Amino acid sequence: MTGELRTLNGEIFDRAPLDALLKRRLFYTESFEIYRTASNFKGDTKGLYDYGPPGCALQANVVDLWRKHFVLEEDMLEFVCTMLTPEDVFKTSGHVDKFADWMCKDSKTGDYLRADHLVENVLEARLKGDKAARGVKVEDKDESPTDAKKNKRKVKDIKIAKLDDNTVTRYEEILARIDNYDGTELATLIKRLDIRNPDGNNKVLPPIPFNLMFKTTIGPSSASPGYLRPETAQGQFVNFKKMLEYNNNSMPFASASIGTSFRNEISPRSGLLRVREFLMAEIEHYVDPEGEKKHARFDEVRDIELRLLDRHVQLAGKSNLRVMTVGEAVDTKVVDNETLGYFLARTKLFLEKIGVDLGKLRFRQHMANEMAHYAADCWDAELLTSYGWIECVGCADRSAYDLTVHARRTGEALVVRETRQEPVQIEEWQVDMDKKKLGPKFRKDAKAVELALETLSQDKRELYATILDHRGSISINVACLPEGKAELGKDLIQFVRRTRTENIREYTPNVIEPSFGIGRILYCLLEHVYWHRPGDDARGILSLPPLIAPTKVLLVPLSNHPDFNPVIRKLSQRLRAAGISTRTDASNASIGKRYSRNDELGTPLGITVDFDTLKDGTVTLRDRDSTKQVRASADDVVDAVAALVHVKEVWPDVFARLPEFRGQSAEE
Amino acid sequence: MTGELRTLNGEIFDRAPLDALLKRRLFYTESFEIYRTASNFKGDTKGLYDYGPPGCALQANVVDLWRKHFVLEEDMLEFVCTMLTPEDVFKTSGHVDKFADWMCKDSKTGDYLRADHLVENVLEARLKGDKAARGVKVEDKDESPTDAKKNKRKVKDIKIAKLDDNTVTRYEEILARIDNYDGTELATLIKRLDIRNPDGNNKVLPPIPFNLMFKTTIGPSSASPGYLRPETAQGQFVNFKKMLEYNNNSMPFASASIGTSFRNEISPRSGLLRVREFLMAEIEHYVDPEGEKKHARFDEVRDIELRLLDRHVQLAGKSNLRVMTVGEAVDTKVVDNETLGYFLARTKLFLEKIGVDLGKLRFRQHMANEMAHYAADCWDAELLTSYGWIECVGCADRSAYDLTVHARRTGEALVVRETRQEPVQIEEWQVDMDKKKLGPKFRKDAKAVELALETLSQDKRELYATILDHRGSISINVACLPEGKAELGKDLIQFVRRTRTENIREYTPNVIEPSFGIGRILYCLLEHVYWHRPGDDARGILSLPPLIAPTKVLLVPLSNHPDFNPVIRKLSQRLRAAGISTRTDASNASIGKRYSRNDELGTPLGITVDFDTLKDGTVTLRDRDSTKQVRASADDVVDAVAALVHVKEVWPDVFARLPEFRGQSAEE
Repeated sequence: MTGELRTLNGEIFDRAPLDALLKRRLFYTESFEIYRTASNFKGDTKGLYDYGPPGCALQANVVDLWRKHFVLEEDMLEFVCTMLTPEDVFKTSGHVDKFADWMCKDSKTGDYLRADHLVENVLEARLKGDKAARGVKVEDKDESPTDAKKNKRKVKDIKIAKLDDNTVTRYEEILARIDNYDGTELATLIKRLDIRNPDGNNKVLPPIPFNLMFKTTIGPSSASPGYLRPETAQGQFVNFKKMLEYNNNSMPFASASIGTSFRNEISPRSGLLRVREFLMAEIEHYVDPEGEKKHARFDEVRDIELRLLDRHVQLAGKSNLRVMTVGEAVDTKVVDNETLGYFLARTKLFLEKIGVDLGKLRFRQHMANEMAHYAADCWDAELLTSYGWIECVGCADRSAYDLTVHARRTGEALVVRETRQEPVQIEEWQVDMDKKKLGPKFRKDAKAVELALETLSQDKRELYATILDHRGSISINVACLPEGKAELGKDLIQFVRRTRTENIREYTPNVIEPSFGIGRILYCLLEHVYWHRPGDDARGILSLPPLIAPTKVLLVPLSNHPDFNPVIRKLSQRLRAAGISTRTDASNASIGKRYSRNDELGTPLGITVDFDTLKDGTVTLRDRDSTKQVRASADDVVDAVAALVHVKEVWPDVFARLPEFRGQSAEE
Repeated sequence: MTGELRTLNGEIFDRAPLDALLKRRLFYTESFEIYRTASNFKGDTKGLYDYGPPGCALQANVVDLWRKHFVLEEDMLEFVCTMLTPEDVFKTSGHVDKFADWMCKDSKTGDYLRADHLVENVLEARLKGDKAARGVKVEDKDESPTDAKKNKRKVKDIKIAKLDDNTVTRYEEILARIDNYDGTELATLIKRLDIRNPDGNNKVLPPIPFNLMFKTTIGPSSASPGYLRPETAQGQFVNFKKMLEYNNNSMPFASASIGTSFRNEISPRSGLLRVREFLMAEIEHYVDPEGEKKHARFDEVRDIELRLLDRHVQLAGKSNLRVMTVGEAVDTKVVDNETLGYFLARTKLFLEKIGVDLGKLRFRQHMANEMAHYAADCWDAELLTSYGWIECVGCADRSAYDLTVHARRTGEALVVRETRQEPVQIEEWQVDMDKKKLGPKFRKDAKAVELALETLSQDKRELYATILDHRGSISINVACLPEGKAELGKDLIQFVRRTRTENIREYTPNVIEPSFGIGRILYCLLEHVYWHRPGDDARGILSLPPLIAPTKVLLVPLSNHPDFNPVIRKLSQRLRAAGISTRTDASNASIGKRYSRNDELGTPLGITVDFDTLKDGTVTLRDRDSTKQVRASADDVVDAVAALVHVKEVWPDVFARLPEFRGQSAEE
């Protein structure tokens, strides 16, 4: 796949110089790096990264744009919720029981390996050995500079051995479905294919589930366990009642949260793509399940084209994309509903704004067995990189799952109540309880028992009515009771069929959740915008759009002549006052060198002050990508900068308006 | 103290209506509130708060201003570092051993109590009982709505009993120094004064230290413990070498980080003031210790006046403030050096910009026994609130402590190397090691042993030279060795006195650290800007400066007449394009009511569109604080809004320029 990947100017993409650039310019760096090599250091720092100055600024600009594009544009209710979360909340949401990966232990060394990664690595190595035997060039898709040493050993270890054609096909099918196997299936694969730890060739024990949440204790007593959240969503859901009130009980609406989440990955890898601590931006859009999940602004995005990889195509073992408008996709039920479709389209527009290469974007539907435990449908925005297609945004329909389970556990009604325009007559099974007896019998749990009865479906009520009639008592599930259920006799409850006039409609909203992994998006974006001057791979460029570039303008005095200082200072002040970040490079390096350094930082614009400036007040303005320059008065140039940064003009407009400049220092 | 506190318009400050307002308008709210009342919930959610929409926006604006005021203004290197930190890092920094509070266990119930808070609460209760006996009115400084029930019981429990005058004086002295007692002293106080748990009157066990860091495990193996950081500083220090390189090895410079930290408080209280998860903004300014810690821009702040409470005044048991300029304070050594003084002044300017009442700001120097284990000197910016003086910013001189200990532990040189203009001759004790023997003897720890030898002070070297001479071997501390020390004989090392020509000067920078607790600042600020219309405490106002107000402009159509819609939409678009956030309130409530609601949110400006607007295009602009209005063309009003929001004009300028409007709906 790496071989196919092209940069913006059509050359073959090579990851090594980009990685070196990002490290050299401190976009990000491994956390606690000085400890990794310290003697006797036993900590595990894998999957932890710090962002340096340009990475920080880039991230802040992307987050700021996200807030404007989503939160402000649609008046979403923004929340900052705590990362520390009591265990009970994640018991309710299902994360304590289900948020796990499968992990194998090396039978001799005791090392832990993520089971699906193990199978993947071993089968890929065998396929490579086969290719090598057939004389085909072998590449390593997961190699990064820090892993290079380890990988070299791995690659060296590959047994060059030809496989028969059936085996190749079978391995390729397994690899295509590697995300979809559960523990039992992985155990079977490991046994049947004799998969061993590549590091030492030991057998591994059968996979066991490993919960990915970091556990801790909140408060001085060890009796109150807590977790670091693996997503921001639950913090939003438990505040639903307050949000609805704040929104004057009006539906639909969305909440949003930008914050750090944590996943204790078994084997972090691929740089920023699989880490243990990461920034997320999540939207929870609450919608009435009865209105076909329509969206009021769907018409604004109806004609936007998406490249889709739906469930049926994947089931057929294919990966060809279908290009269609969101309108078509929703009309033909490829995408389930308008709200989901609306957010897919808005996500595409956001990714386009920050500079993602749209030729490297697709939307992939989750397979049924691949979805999180809470999801009813899910589409990922995936970006193509040298590591393959990377899931960067998930758009999940979480149905009413979360609000329902939290309501059941806490006894708090997380519902919407709407006055009906026309009252309706409803014939239904009702529960009559003798609360005077229930109270003393169940004491502090009485509320939970009542809630369990009230939330019984009509089908269950009908069934229990019969059982109660026959047996004189029923047993219903109430999680918080010691035995997990309550035994209730005819003296306590009755099920009666009655007709009721309903003036108020009550429902639990469904949730559509677009969830953005900011770190992943940043890394993929950096791969998309990286290229180098033709024939000179030491001169890398990050073609970041002005809107999100860490610094917008580089100010360059021709030399360190003191007369340039006041001009530079004044330009800097004027631009800062207009909210445009600048950096001055007054070093002794040549102008060309100074521009090159800032091409690496993605600085889109450069202003040079030279001796002509001192005579006539003109300065030059340079375009990072073409290296072309114009020359005009400082006023005109500041105006052009503002227009380019705020995306009111593009470079062709400026070239058409201001005279080109060819002089000064050669770039080459 | 509460009785003395005045609002902006001179009335007595009352916390209850402010608390109610903040809760009602979702500035912030207790996290997981629906779980707290759920049956069988055992989690501990105290000290955890979520920010709703206005709180989020306020916090984002304050953080944005902080970044501009500090990071951009001085080209600081901003970092985002991980919160997860391996144990070793905090062992080195001293936090594993020393970052603890003293905690007592109730001898019968097993409840945990923070020892200093326990002593404080009990003595305050006794003093209240004494006051009550003397017929003086009693107030409760720590009461918040959620604690109200508990506190009512506590207040009710107070034994009305007169104390003798000596006892009163003694208790007051103890309370004044309550932050300064160590575990032994607290144990003595608890025994001597028979201090018991107010909740049940049981005796308590002697205080034990409780580490305030949240512990977890990083990775699948339980062999790599980690902590959530209690400060952002260590993440910055371990990156020092990369930062210095990024800064072209030029000194001085600063790094900065805005991020969440965690402290597992034993008994969180006082709302946002003592919480378990909080946002910090920290600067680490690296300075050459030999230059008297001068600051190049000190002259810019020299004349700024500060209200200081220094160590000597406090030692004398007083609290009278000394008002002097930063220049005077540094000249007279009240404040140790220019860099510390510079940041105190810049901190004052920042707090002033966000709207802090400067009459409620003081800078207090830490007492020697009150400082963190790493600090050489420390000044807190404290804000006066109904909870007393609250530490909101700490300006600590951490000396070379952190860089030295990390360098020692990791073997990485965290130093600055500068070419000397004139080489110097230095006579000194040098260590000659036989590395060929050291290597095989200490294997992987050899590097640590070498480093331990190289970092020995001249005094120690002289001493060891003598010992080596007499005994034939010495024993030096090397933390990572099993026994914690290395035994070295004459065959391995020699100490020799030599004269050396030094061309390169090498030094470990000292660190001046201004550290901001954003949540605390926000709460104190909200107390400072809260007041209500005279005679009507239901009409609260938050006089937040436009720069940081959550929403800048409220747009109000006179009625729901459809002709108003396009005008409102156009105004909103124009203001948003200028980067000014707006909200429209088109509800049926009266204009006065709509303005009142937004006074509570701190919205500084309001624009009304009425029937005259449809005729002549004029709109009115309202000042939140005076409720006065002007009327002018939409262009003029948009200009005025921009000038006010960007602090280029203040209201008197606008009143002088545009005609006053008195008409429309009455505010009263």
